[in-house]
Amino acid sequence: MALIVQKFGGSSVADTASIRRVAGRIIATRNQGHQVVVVVSAMGDTTDELLDMAAELTTNPNSRELDILLTAGERISMSLLAMALTEMGAPASSYTGQQAGIHTDATYGHASITAMVPERIARAIKAGHIAVVAGFQGVNDNLDVTTLGRGGSDTTAVALAHALQADVCEIYTDVDGMFSADPRVVPSSHQLPAVRYEEALELAAHGAKILHTRAVEFARRYNVPLHVRSSFSDKEGTWISNQVAPPELAGIVPAAALNQEAKVEQPIISGIAHDKTQEKITVIGLPDEPGAAARMFEVVANAGAKIGMIVQNVGVSEPGRANISFTLPEADARRALEALTHAKDDLGYHELSDNSEIGILSLVGAGMRSHPWVSAKLFGALARTGVNISMISTSEIRISVVTGLDDLDVALRAVHTAFGLDAVGPEAIVYAGSGR
Amino acid sequence: MALIVQKFGGSSVADTASIRRVAGRIIATRNQGHQVVVVVSAMGDTTDELLDMAAELTTNPNSRELDILLTAGERISMSLLAMALTEMGAPASSYTGQQAGIHTDATYGHASITAMVPERIARAIKAGHIAVVAGFQGVNDNLDVTTLGRGGSDTTAVALAHALQADVCEIYTDVDGMFSADPRVVPSSHQLPAVRYEEALELAAHGAKILHTRAVEFARRYNVPLHVRSSFSDKEGTWISNQVAPPELAGIVPAAALNQEAKVEQPIISGIAHDKTQEKITVIGLPDEPGAAARMFEVVANAGAKIGMIVQNVGVSEPGRANISFTLPEADARRALEALTHAKDDLGYHELSDNSEIGILSLVGAGMRSHPWVSAKLFGALARTGVNISMISTSEIRISVVTGLDDLDVALRAVHTAFGLDAVGPEAIVYAGSGR
Repeated sequence: MALIVQKFGGSSVADTASIRRVAGRIIATRNQGHQVVVVVSAMGDTTDELLDMAAELTTNPNSRELDILLTAGERISMSLLAMALTEMGAPASSYTGQQAGIHTDATYGHASITAMVPERIARAIKAGHIAVVAGFQGVNDNLDVTTLGRGGSDTTAVALAHALQADVCEIYTDVDGMFSADPRVVPSSHQLPAVRYEEALELAAHGAKILHTRAVEFARRYNVPLHVRSSFSDKEGTWISNQVAPPELAGIVPAAALNQEAKVEQPIISGIAHDKTQEKITVIGLPDEPGAAARMFEVVANAGAKIGMIVQNVGVSEPGRANISFTLPEADARRALEALTHAKDDLGYHELSDNSEIGILSLVGAGMRSHPWVSAKLFGALARTGVNISMISTSEIRISVVTGLDDLDVALRAVHTAFGLDAVGPEAIVYAGSGR
Repeated sequence: MALIVQKFGGSSVADTASIRRVAGRIIATRNQGHQVVVVVSAMGDTTDELLDMAAELTTNPNSRELDILLTAGERISMSLLAMALTEMGAPASSYTGQQAGIHTDATYGHASITAMVPERIARAIKAGHIAVVAGFQGVNDNLDVTTLGRGGSDTTAVALAHALQADVCEIYTDVDGMFSADPRVVPSSHQLPAVRYEEALELAAHGAKILHTRAVEFARRYNVPLHVRSSFSDKEGTWISNQVAPPELAGIVPAAALNQEAKVEQPIISGIAHDKTQEKITVIGLPDEPGAAARMFEVVANAGAKIGMIVQNVGVSEPGRANISFTLPEADARRALEALTHAKDDLGYHELSDNSEIGILSLVGAGMRSHPWVSAKLFGALARTGVNISMISTSEIRISVVTGLDDLDVALRAVHTAFGLDAVGPEAIVYAGSGR
């Protein structure tokens, strides 16, 4: 018997028929002899509908009010799911974030969890109940309701799994798991049976929308095994963990996930993420003097823009001047451009250029930096397809390149093939090979 | 400066435009120099929509789950209203039942208030904020959310008004106040400027849907002055109170409401309530022996039916046998009939008869019983219109008669006229006369 935390997103509980289907799935897990704690998001578009109503009333909603408004959605889905479970023969009780003992700071809109005291959940499990917990929400010291921000329900699930010492945290979604590349762009991509936290983080941070980095970071810090899988099928999804699993997990965690540790010395290409929602801003003719770049980025940061990649070219076109390019989410670009324009005299640059027609491809895998053939193979593949690269950034386990937006899909498929990630048969699905 | 509790029902906050209108109204009160605490129901049909979803999932929802489901509606309306108020320049904060310190027992679905500790509301008022409180909900000792049942938001408002020692509790609704009879049936009816708690209770209990008896009972027990008025106009509504108001209320409570005490020795016909949702069951040939009627009513009570009027005719058709007729809500009738049928052998009656085509007219006024001309006038008016009466019941301040359903409207108008309640000019609106 294992203790399993299962998280279902809004699309899995969009209407009462979906709720019934999800309930059937939870009961199937229970009937295998496991204890189940469920974390649930708001139904379908509920959150957006609530946001729309708020927007009709004010352009600047009070953040405390906005948080209590939004958390109504999970109250509805959690109680309906508990009713469906009970009706179908599995006694279930639902719990708000407060009742589940999820304490946060007072940062409305993106609160951080400060303490987990899930006593009532533990008691419910002991009593043989399925506990259904509202995702995305907590309570601060003032007993005011807070929300955890984007990916909040995933974070709730991982935090609960850690606090309850669950054997696994299952994240149910509308795809089968994490893939070596987006299957809509790269038809030959294959599902990853298992990845390490670090690769999952890089994939999530660079365009794979299936998981939020915050939940993965939480899982990594506390070694909570994650299993990302489809709520529409019984297929195994993608396991995310680092260590050899405890003996209790035999039969729950597949062998591929258990013996990752042994492979870590070899570069393992997990997959390729891509992101079409970034924009590139170039500051042309910034004085090449100490502190100039720092002041420029301070202006951008104060505008609330989240900077991704940065490239600086010094003295190429004009001595004593530098061009700095950086990427940022399209949604942040206007604010950043306005702030930079406003600070033009202070910063002393010549002009700004702005390009939203870019794509970013990120190759992710363990041990990449110590194996120079990886970048050689990447750039070779891109060169052969005639794709131009305008920026490059690397980390221990990732290489990202900026291409033209129209070139991105071609680039993705070429790189996927070059690294031997194309699924050619069942054996290719066992593990993403090194491509050597 | 007075402290005013204002309660707005679901139809007053049906959409964001209505919420904005209500916010304007609250701010107008505040701009008159008053402190305002607002109690709000769920938007429009929200509660019904939530109930429908629950019904799609289970025929027998767990009551704890149902309560937390339903309370989501008030969280949405209260936070949206607080946002609208703040946007329009009046700082406002919203509070759940729990945050407002509304403690209840654990009777889910119709919990009773056990303690009011509205510390946060008091602090909000002191800070110059408008406090918006979710109606209909509280929290039990287990920190589980409860609902107060039908009329729960009215009860929340009255309980808060009492706990905060508010000067008045304003109940906003979609009509102008309480009337001498339903204006849709009796076009000549007039609005009542003021009634005593007892009459308001009788009117509410016998068909006037504008207020729930429970809230009036609460107000009576703690002497909370109620003002029932329209959310669509600025007109004075109907004041409900018993005593001469405290000096602070001068200018808030009209003179007509303040000097009721003096009139109490004369019979004062407040108005006529009617109810078309009742059914009449007759148990024919019940043994006329001690305890037989008691056993029969025990059967009915155990079926969960709420009995209204009772009439017993002994030995009319058959010596040693009695016929007992009673009224009950249509919604309860099937359960009662099934239970009586099931117990036929035990109870030893001959047969059951059942009539849903009845109407009940209730004449309500203080000091009625000690003035026999009141009933003479009532029955005279009914006789002249040829309306047949099948049951009669009386209390200190009420006479109710059962008529045929089709006769009820005619009967209402005739009685309204006979007692001089028809509005003939402004002077008739000052106070419902004695009709002598």
